[in-house]
Amino acid sequence: MRFDVTVLGSNSAIPANGRYLSAQVLTIQNNLYLIDCGEGTQFRIRDFKIKSSKINEIFISHLHGDHYLGLVGLLGTLNLQGRKETLTIFSPPGLEEIVQAHIQYGETRFGYELKFVVVDSLKYQKIFEDQLIEVFSIPLIHRIPTSGYLFKEKPHPKNINSEAIKKYNLSIDQIKAVKAGEDLKMEDGIFISNNELTIRKKRKSFAYCSDTVYSEAIIPFIQHVDILYHEATYTDDLRKLAKQYMHSTALQAATIADKGNVGKLIMGHFSSRYESPKALEVEARTVFENSFAVVEGEIYSHDEN
Amino acid sequence: MRFDVTVLGSNSAIPANGRYLSAQVLTIQNNLYLIDCGEGTQFRIRDFKIKSSKINEIFISHLHGDHYLGLVGLLGTLNLQGRKETLTIFSPPGLEEIVQAHIQYGETRFGYELKFVVVDSLKYQKIFEDQLIEVFSIPLIHRIPTSGYLFKEKPHPKNINSEAIKKYNLSIDQIKAVKAGEDLKMEDGIFISNNELTIRKKRKSFAYCSDTVYSEAIIPFIQHVDILYHEATYTDDLRKLAKQYMHSTALQAATIADKGNVGKLIMGHFSSRYESPKALEVEARTVFENSFAVVEGEIYSHDEN
Repeated sequence: MRFDVTVLGSNSAIPANGRYLSAQVLTIQNNLYLIDCGEGTQFRIRDFKIKSSKINEIFISHLHGDHYLGLVGLLGTLNLQGRKETLTIFSPPGLEEIVQAHIQYGETRFGYELKFVVVDSLKYQKIFEDQLIEVFSIPLIHRIPTSGYLFKEKPHPKNINSEAIKKYNLSIDQIKAVKAGEDLKMEDGIFISNNELTIRKKRKSFAYCSDTVYSEAIIPFIQHVDILYHEATYTDDLRKLAKQYMHSTALQAATIADKGNVGKLIMGHFSSRYESPKALEVEARTVFENSFAVVEGEIYSHDEN
Repeated sequence: MRFDVTVLGSNSAIPANGRYLSAQVLTIQNNLYLIDCGEGTQFRIRDFKIKSSKINEIFISHLHGDHYLGLVGLLGTLNLQGRKETLTIFSPPGLEEIVQAHIQYGETRFGYELKFVVVDSLKYQKIFEDQLIEVFSIPLIHRIPTSGYLFKEKPHPKNINSEAIKKYNLSIDQIKAVKAGEDLKMEDGIFISNNELTIRKKRKSFAYCSDTVYSEAIIPFIQHVDILYHEATYTDDLRKLAKQYMHSTALQAATIADKGNVGKLIMGHFSSRYESPKALEVEARTVFENSFAVVEGEIYSHDEN
């Protein structure tokens, strides 16, 4: 079962050093979720052979150009490709007005329904669910209203714990009862709770936090996620600059990852001043070992424990 | 003295076959004029080392996405690069409203002035001039209001015709008089007009016609231009499709070039179905020999006669 993140763009502000602008695809089983959509995202979707027809939801963090200017072009391309399925776009306020202005003057007629959902960037709340996941907004602190997103698998069904079956030598009838969620009362009077007889796979989770100043307020929301994407625009010698523009350093991203006990940290939104983001990775690893400066086209999955 | 066109993008509708979307830079001496600005134009500006700081005017033909969706990103990048000079953008109605929606929600503050000029796409008229050129709108027929643009060098100053000086053995005083625009009355009573004693370099010209259905109505406006860019979305076997979508075939572009007695035809806006546009070039040359299917990054200059 896939649960991974493909990075389409990793530079901040302007394309540079061969790097495109913020965009990622979260793949869960056969479902694709697009997160941010900087200019050129449709080029990257093609470059990395992403099946864009499988994207039904797009999550935009905020309305700075480097995070959404590829959206209108992508919507048009999906239309030309014959899309019929409804596409739902989540973002802080304003995106629908912008897209409608484009549609109005281009006299565009879409063959599919576009739905816009306004995200309250000051609230942590569930904004979406489908058969696979729940998505929550994460309030971020940036220069304009900005929302992070937490993607969390839905609870998995309970499975019978095969070791418990052996240990208690359960009969077929007993196994059926356990599957139905019952506790067992054994012949010798011992009570065994259903939880002891079953296992439930951990819900995998991914949190996307960009753009944001260093803020420990997000830690409760990203606690124990398998993969945390946290922006790391600068190295920590530019901490003042980071604060001024409400961005983060690699060291700060790693500090959040460490305090949040996450499984893996992936970092992007690199300043154009870094020809390679390697220095940011080295810096982050001094605080949080399992840190990665993302590479476009790479797929980041959760580590199995 | 440069007078040439650098092609930044040549595909229609969506990026494909390694081709970007419509955008061209007209270079006249040291001045750069950007014409159309599809998504990814700022990538091409960087790829081809175009000095974008020298662009002071942008001409948008129409508000279909493949012709202008790179504009807002480019404006932001120019801002981040410290631009101070006013930038003027010409287009059919609506572009200012669209750009202002982006600026409003992104809370963008530009360090330079943005001026929008609405072009009446039904009129042929002068819309701009600077010290080097005059620009005229060309009414095109497409699915939404669309304007082509004619760029024409300003009249060059008259120069003394050195052969005439020899022929009439002119004195220094007479040469001064000719330079001042006077006709000469020679000692033997012969009258020589100023025009006979001077030469004036031909005004070089470039016409950009995209997107447009085949229409002979444009011929008077593009008559004798040195370089005609005419869209050629399809080969002529798809003439019906071209008409349906209000585009042109390569044969039709060449027919316009031929009837317009232009110096050179360059064609672009190729349908994604053509992995290479070579077939369009071959087709056009059956009607107009000096035809070229454009290649991105190539520079097309006028032919010296």
